[in-house]
Amino acid sequence: MTVEQTTGKASTKRTIDRKRRVPPGAAPGTLVADPTASQPTIRLIAYGPDDFEEIEIAEMKELEPRIGKHAVTWINITGLGNLDLIRRLGDLFSLHGLALEDVVNLHQRPKVEEYAEHAFIVTRMIADASSPTTEQVSMFLGAQFLLTFQERPGDCFEPIRARLRSGRAKIRDRQADYLAYALLDAVIDGYFPVLEAMGERLEVLEDRVIARPADIEAAEIHEIKRDLLLLRRTVWPQREMVNALTRETSPYVTDQTRLYLRDCYDHTIQLMDIVETYREIATGLIDVYLSSVSTRLNEIMKVLTIIATIFIPLGFIAGVYGMNFDRSASPWNMPELGWYWGYPAVIGLMAVLALWMLYYFYRKGWILGGGGKQRRR
Amino acid sequence: MTVEQTTGKASTKRTIDRKRRVPPGAAPGTLVADPTASQPTIRLIAYGPDDFEEIEIAEMKELEPRIGKHAVTWINITGLGNLDLIRRLGDLFSLHGLALEDVVNLHQRPKVEEYAEHAFIVTRMIADASSPTTEQVSMFLGAQFLLTFQERPGDCFEPIRARLRSGRAKIRDRQADYLAYALLDAVIDGYFPVLEAMGERLEVLEDRVIARPADIEAAEIHEIKRDLLLLRRTVWPQREMVNALTRETSPYVTDQTRLYLRDCYDHTIQLMDIVETYREIATGLIDVYLSSVSTRLNEIMKVLTIIATIFIPLGFIAGVYGMNFDRSASPWNMPELGWYWGYPAVIGLMAVLALWMLYYFYRKGWILGGGGKQRRR
Amino acid sequence: MTVEQTTGKASTKRTIDRKRRVPPGAAPGTLVADPTASQPTIRLIAYGPDDFEEIEIAEMKELEPRIGKHAVTWINITGLGNLDLIRRLGDLFSLHGLALEDVVNLHQRPKVEEYAEHAFIVTRMIADASSPTTEQVSMFLGAQFLLTFQERPGDCFEPIRARLRSGRAKIRDRQADYLAYALLDAVIDGYFPVLEAMGERLEVLEDRVIARPADIEAAEIHEIKRDLLLLRRTVWPQREMVNALTRETSPYVTDQTRLYLRDCYDHTIQLMDIVETYREIATGLIDVYLSSVSTRLNEIMKVLTIIATIFIPLGFIAGVYGMNFDRSASPWNMPELGWYWGYPAVIGLMAVLALWMLYYFYRKGWILGGGGKQRRR
Amino acid sequence: MTVEQTTGKASTKRTIDRKRRVPPGAAPGTLVADPTASQPTIRLIAYGPDDFEEIEIAEMKELEPRIGKHAVTWINITGLGNLDLIRRLGDLFSLHGLALEDVVNLHQRPKVEEYAEHAFIVTRMIADASSPTTEQVSMFLGAQFLLTFQERPGDCFEPIRARLRSGRAKIRDRQADYLAYALLDAVIDGYFPVLEAMGERLEVLEDRVIARPADIEAAEIHEIKRDLLLLRRTVWPQREMVNALTRETSPYVTDQTRLYLRDCYDHTIQLMDIVETYREIATGLIDVYLSSVSTRLNEIMKVLTIIATIFIPLGFIAGVYGMNFDRSASPWNMPELGWYWGYPAVIGLMAVLALWMLYYFYRKGWILGGGGKQRRR
Amino acid sequence: MTVEQTTGKASTKRTIDRKRRVPPGAAPGTLVADPTASQPTIRLIAYGPDDFEEIEIAEMKELEPRIGKHAVTWINITGLGNLDLIRRLGDLFSLHGLALEDVVNLHQRPKVEEYAEHAFIVTRMIADASSPTTEQVSMFLGAQFLLTFQERPGDCFEPIRARLRSGRAKIRDRQADYLAYALLDAVIDGYFPVLEAMGERLEVLEDRVIARPADIEAAEIHEIKRDLLLLRRTVWPQREMVNALTRETSPYVTDQTRLYLRDCYDHTIQLMDIVETYREIATGLIDVYLSSVSTRLNEIMKVLTIIATIFIPLGFIAGVYGMNFDRSASPWNMPELGWYWGYPAVIGLMAVLALWMLYYFYRKGWILGGGGKQRRR
Repeated sequence: MTVEQTTGKASTKRTIDRKRRVPPGAAPGTLVADPTASQPTIRLIAYGPDDFEEIEIAEMKELEPRIGKHAVTWINITGLGNLDLIRRLGDLFSLHGLALEDVVNLHQRPKVEEYAEHAFIVTRMIADASSPTTEQVSMFLGAQFLLTFQERPGDCFEPIRARLRSGRAKIRDRQADYLAYALLDAVIDGYFPVLEAMGERLEVLEDRVIARPADIEAAEIHEIKRDLLLLRRTVWPQREMVNALTRETSPYVTDQTRLYLRDCYDHTIQLMDIVETYREIATGLIDVYLSSVSTRLNEIMKVLTIIATIFIPLGFIAGVYGMNFDRSASPWNMPELGWYWGYPAVIGLMAVLALWMLYYFYRKGWILGGGGKQRRR
Repeated sequence: MTVEQTTGKASTKRTIDRKRRVPPGAAPGTLVADPTASQPTIRLIAYGPDDFEEIEIAEMKELEPRIGKHAVTWINITGLGNLDLIRRLGDLFSLHGLALEDVVNLHQRPKVEEYAEHAFIVTRMIADASSPTTEQVSMFLGAQFLLTFQERPGDCFEPIRARLRSGRAKIRDRQADYLAYALLDAVIDGYFPVLEAMGERLEVLEDRVIARPADIEAAEIHEIKRDLLLLRRTVWPQREMVNALTRETSPYVTDQTRLYLRDCYDHTIQLMDIVETYREIATGLIDVYLSSVSTRLNEIMKVLTIIATIFIPLGFIAGVYGMNFDRSASPWNMPELGWYWGYPAVIGLMAVLALWMLYYFYRKGWILGGGGKQRRR
Repeated sequence: MTVEQTTGKASTKRTIDRKRRVPPGAAPGTLVADPTASQPTIRLIAYGPDDFEEIEIAEMKELEPRIGKHAVTWINITGLGNLDLIRRLGDLFSLHGLALEDVVNLHQRPKVEEYAEHAFIVTRMIADASSPTTEQVSMFLGAQFLLTFQERPGDCFEPIRARLRSGRAKIRDRQADYLAYALLDAVIDGYFPVLEAMGERLEVLEDRVIARPADIEAAEIHEIKRDLLLLRRTVWPQREMVNALTRETSPYVTDQTRLYLRDCYDHTIQLMDIVETYREIATGLIDVYLSSVSTRLNEIMKVLTIIATIFIPLGFIAGVYGMNFDRSASPWNMPELGWYWGYPAVIGLMAVLALWMLYYFYRKGWILGGGGKQRRR
Repeated sequence: MTVEQTTGKASTKRTIDRKRRVPPGAAPGTLVADPTASQPTIRLIAYGPDDFEEIEIAEMKELEPRIGKHAVTWINITGLGNLDLIRRLGDLFSLHGLALEDVVNLHQRPKVEEYAEHAFIVTRMIADASSPTTEQVSMFLGAQFLLTFQERPGDCFEPIRARLRSGRAKIRDRQADYLAYALLDAVIDGYFPVLEAMGERLEVLEDRVIARPADIEAAEIHEIKRDLLLLRRTVWPQREMVNALTRETSPYVTDQTRLYLRDCYDHTIQLMDIVETYREIATGLIDVYLSSVSTRLNEIMKVLTIIATIFIPLGFIAGVYGMNFDRSASPWNMPELGWYWGYPAVIGLMAVLALWMLYYFYRKGWILGGGGKQRRR
Repeated sequence: MTVEQTTGKASTKRTIDRKRRVPPGAAPGTLVADPTASQPTIRLIAYGPDDFEEIEIAEMKELEPRIGKHAVTWINITGLGNLDLIRRLGDLFSLHGLALEDVVNLHQRPKVEEYAEHAFIVTRMIADASSPTTEQVSMFLGAQFLLTFQERPGDCFEPIRARLRSGRAKIRDRQADYLAYALLDAVIDGYFPVLEAMGERLEVLEDRVIARPADIEAAEIHEIKRDLLLLRRTVWPQREMVNALTRETSPYVTDQTRLYLRDCYDHTIQLMDIVETYREIATGLIDVYLSSVSTRLNEIMKVLTIIATIFIPLGFIAGVYGMNFDRSASPWNMPELGWYWGYPAVIGLMAVLALWMLYYFYRKGWILGGGGKQRRR
């Protein structure tokens, strides 16, 4: 799917979805398989308040007689590698060609589309709780059926299957639209653990930027911002999609279910809210990081300046008295060298100079936390 | 609640709410208790224009006969640790399951939801005036009752209870919606002291950044921005919530109360306005801080450059006359060393060079505030 | 009012309004006086096309018989220190309690509120043309009366009083709503001189940043941005307020006056436009300032590098020939010292090295504006 | 007008319009002349499909008998120095006082205002193709007349006059609203050459920032951003103004002309689009500039570091063997000085050290484009 | 078209469209040819469910008899160099003059305009998959005809022509509006490969900024941002255009086709979404780049500081003992020089000093990854 392993250290980088599309100019409704797509498995769950059937479908001919026997028929197709099967399902349930094209054209944004025979819902499910990578789930919601297509085995729908199997659950009394809601709710709740992990990552990074900025590379902050950007790209249309379902006057969504979708919409708003907050914090971190880099440069330069400023002048004095002027040629040629206290005097001069410099740096607040008076000027 | 103590110096950091939710795929309306929630205490205040009753309820059976006896019944539950009690209250007042789920699922954003039997209001109350940490308050507003759930003992409703107890207050003549307004108003007014404290913190920081930037760490500015971000996250939906109540055509809010809610809405706008202004000032502070860091670097480099630029050339001259060329081998080998005025001349040359450099730095405006003419070029 | 003098150099800083409010939980309509508020003076101006009366009112009982005698009665209260008086005025004109609360609760944002008996208008008047500090003016507009409350003596309404006194003015033929418009127009026009002063300040700063960046402190740019922020906070709701008056279907504003309010609205848009333009320029200045700081650092480092790069190698050469190897111990020990042209050769080598370095720096464009060819690489 | 020449190098700076207004509190409709306004000249062009008259009007009495004789009467007043004339024109055509006030109050934003007797249109015409400076053009559009006021001689309407004079032009068959459209279209098309010039300026600057950043001052980028800001301030309300004309249900604009105004609106969108694109590019340039300043600092520091790092240790070694310890006092006192290969060994040691340093810098990629291997770590 | 080759290295830079327009003041509908426009070739494809005709038209008189013979007539004009031909086509199909003006006035933004006789659609087609350069395609959609104008030979419509030629395609059963949709869909799908290329460029740049920042110039990031800006400028109005077609109640677009346009609209949203994501990533890259520049400066300065801080003091000590004080003049003049262990003691002192400095730098974490303890303070 969207994880393309890049070489070396950046191996965890998520690439941005670049839709692999039908060639430009092809007829709408043209189905083009992703060559890496896996072969489909079909699972049918049909139920009413008092009846329940669950079966793994091997061939289309097993499927057809079973449709319409129960109040709700849920057909879950995992793997999009068999275009012929998808076309036959399309014919069986009168699915629109444009919608079918979007089922196999992965990297769709979450959306709802109303067609005459059914509503078409695209959502994106977290594929792996440790990353913002998602997998496309397409749903066709009709009066008595729900078709769901997902890319790969493994989903977050198992608790719902368990609720359906147990006869007492409220969900058995409801229609297909409530099942669709339950699946969407599970998909959206699946984002919270990912966000929680990201929040922890961000807080650890925040602590490190503040306590030990030297250990951080700007690339780490960039990477978390990028992950949040990808997450936001998925969550934002998710919100619009649920909102559209809440408002839409689709004949396939009942008012009762709309109340539940409103709750689901509320969760998408919470997701957006957390993502945006994290993004703002991550953006602020860049500033903190940059200023810590500058502060460390100041530290380094202070050390250099203190040492150089003290010793270069002293070195110069030593150099002067290392000159070889011929004292015998003139009484003015370095008479200091012959003085009785010459050497101690020069050493003393150097010490005074060094102490004065140290005091100057102390006053400037560069050493030993000094500088109090001056700062308050 | 949302304060998680982190180790060491960053101990005041507020973490971002990461909703601890019902497991994905659970049936809607599933109540899951926060294991740290405290056991509830129930306080009933029922009143009409001429009657008043206040009682601490120990068991549900004490509660039931008291309902509907007065014009308004206010039941305040403090502590969410008893799910069974909450379920029984839900049955008693026909509270909707989705709303009840939100009562125990803390970290809700403020919102209003209309249900057939009642309006459901979530707000967030400042938990501690010294920080932007908040506690969730959930309200169910029915025709004759108001249920309020709060997480912990301690709230800002005491003045309202006092007004209710004193028979003369206008609030005794009004309906449950006016009581809900009064509570919301108290909650929102509770934000002002927190903002005031934050404004003082910001101004102190501002003064320090301008007067003594060396004492500041960027992390301090980051922290105040973060606190403002958290506050904004709470205040913004608070505003939407009050606005929804003002507009909503709920049968439980009367037009008369709507006028008061408009005033309350006005206060939320003031809150937002102050928060946004603080955020802009804090963002501007980062720029001031960064430029002060750069300016100090310039200061440091000036000192280094002045000292090194003066003494390195002088040191070189001293070094030249410290060379040991054999004067006896050639008249061209360092004849200066034998000159009568050799040493004074070299010292003089050094002095001239140093003065010329100092003048150059003065002209550049690096020392003694010089550079006037040149700057005006 | 909002100017709190802070100590030292930042004495001109304006603090952000932090509403001193009624304690949380107090009954709505509770009037709490600002302890520093001054005692009110009341001036009544009543007029019709052919009649005019102006009087300073000392006691409420003087006021009552005068109401309703003329087409328009304008009562201007200056000073909010007498809550009792305000309550009695409220009773006399049936003013709503929530509105009265806002009259004494200063720091209101400009707004319009429709009540059954009157419209309530809050605006903010420039208190002092040299700063963005404002004073709250509250108006109650009824069918035949206009009440205005202001905090302190001194306002921008004198020209309007003069027009009222002169019998020929069009304003005498109009209703109370036209008077309210005239006052609002004067308030809004009062912002232009403040903006003009701020524009001049900004342009002076701009010239200085560009011509003499070393003289500037980032804090100066921050301060102007802060003042613009405060001004924007006042002007923005001012615009909304006038717009609301223009659209509102209030019975107290006639269509004819609405035409004039549209003109007034136009002025608020001009104000916003200028404020926003100034803010963008000030924000751009920070970038210019930061880059000038960096450019100066480059300048400083160039000087250091040129000097150090030329003299450190030369000093090293001098140092080599200052070594004391025993030439008598070996013919390989510093034979150069005994050469006939040894010293001139070394001096020559040094000169060549220095010139080559200078040429290198010239080619790099660091000195004497050189570097032409290389830059075009 | 808005060009105020400032001294010295910043002489091309455009100041921001600061409206010189009627004194606050003056009666609406008060006309206050700009003391620098020039005396008006009046040109009347009246025409119908088959008739045409063009005349320079010297006195008002020449004007009156000519009005209403033709299908369209266009009166163009150039210069606003005669308030009396403007007032008499106002009376003659029943122009509204508020609109007349805006005619002489320059620095209006483009806008449309509907009055009972006429539509009032303000637009801004490029005054000089080399700068974003504009001049106010005010139009009164009535059923059969169009009055236009401009500040100074010189406009972009000459081609329209030529089309009117030539009898065959479609414009002669149309009403006054089409003439207004034609003038607005000419005004808006006049912005394109200015934008084109600015685009070239920006591209030249862009090339220079990338190729020779040392030649650039941040102030140049700031100036172009400022000019774009001023242009945007004019173009944005221009767009709103044309849009209002397109939508407005004014009786003075026919549906046929609305089609043409839609085309004109399209041009204003193109203008905005180009201005915004330029602004984004200019903003990006600041980043490129700042990073080039930093990169040059790195370059400078590399040179300094390489030289200092090589020669300071070598200088130290030379210094050691320049010490004057008394070799006769002890065999441990600098015996190296007496060794046979002492001097060559020390020179060799220095050479090895220098080469090792150079190799280190090469490995770090600081010199000769080295560092390949290390970078790929 | 919009690619103007600039000299030297910036040769790939795309300039911003600066509309070459009709001179200001010209009559609307004036056609002005671009002098570089090529001569047109006309290709007619006419078809119905059972009939098909494709012909290259050499002269207008060949065209006229063929119009209206089939259900749909598609006339594709390539090259805009013959204004006379365009005018005659305009007369033949009653095309509006303003629309025709836009056909030859290149650099139009994508848009839809409804005229009485036809809808006028402007879109922009990718001219070359390796750059964001586009070419204008203008369409006139009537009841039974579609006219398309493009600037140059070469387009993305070939697959559609192939579908038309093959008799079985659904497109043959539909009306002209479906053909227009098919062309728009091909145009929009043509953007995806360009975006894909840009995404790869961005990711390569991202990897390089993180792994080898020294190799990057800020200008490269600026260039990709600029290309994204240009692409966004084209894609954004493209979206609005398709949206307008979807909503518009044009009689020329049937409800059935609207369903397909909704799918097309969905693709434009995906385009925008990818462009905006890329822009945010590119903006983040600048921060990473700047911080890497700063980090490298820190690295450089650390090397300089370590070397200078160690060797300058050592050099000073060596300098002291290189002074030539006359030991015979006084016992206090450099007695150390005569001590038995003098030289080894000084060398030892130097070694101790150097080791202590190295330890200090290690503790600071500047060398050998030290500093662990201190950082955790």
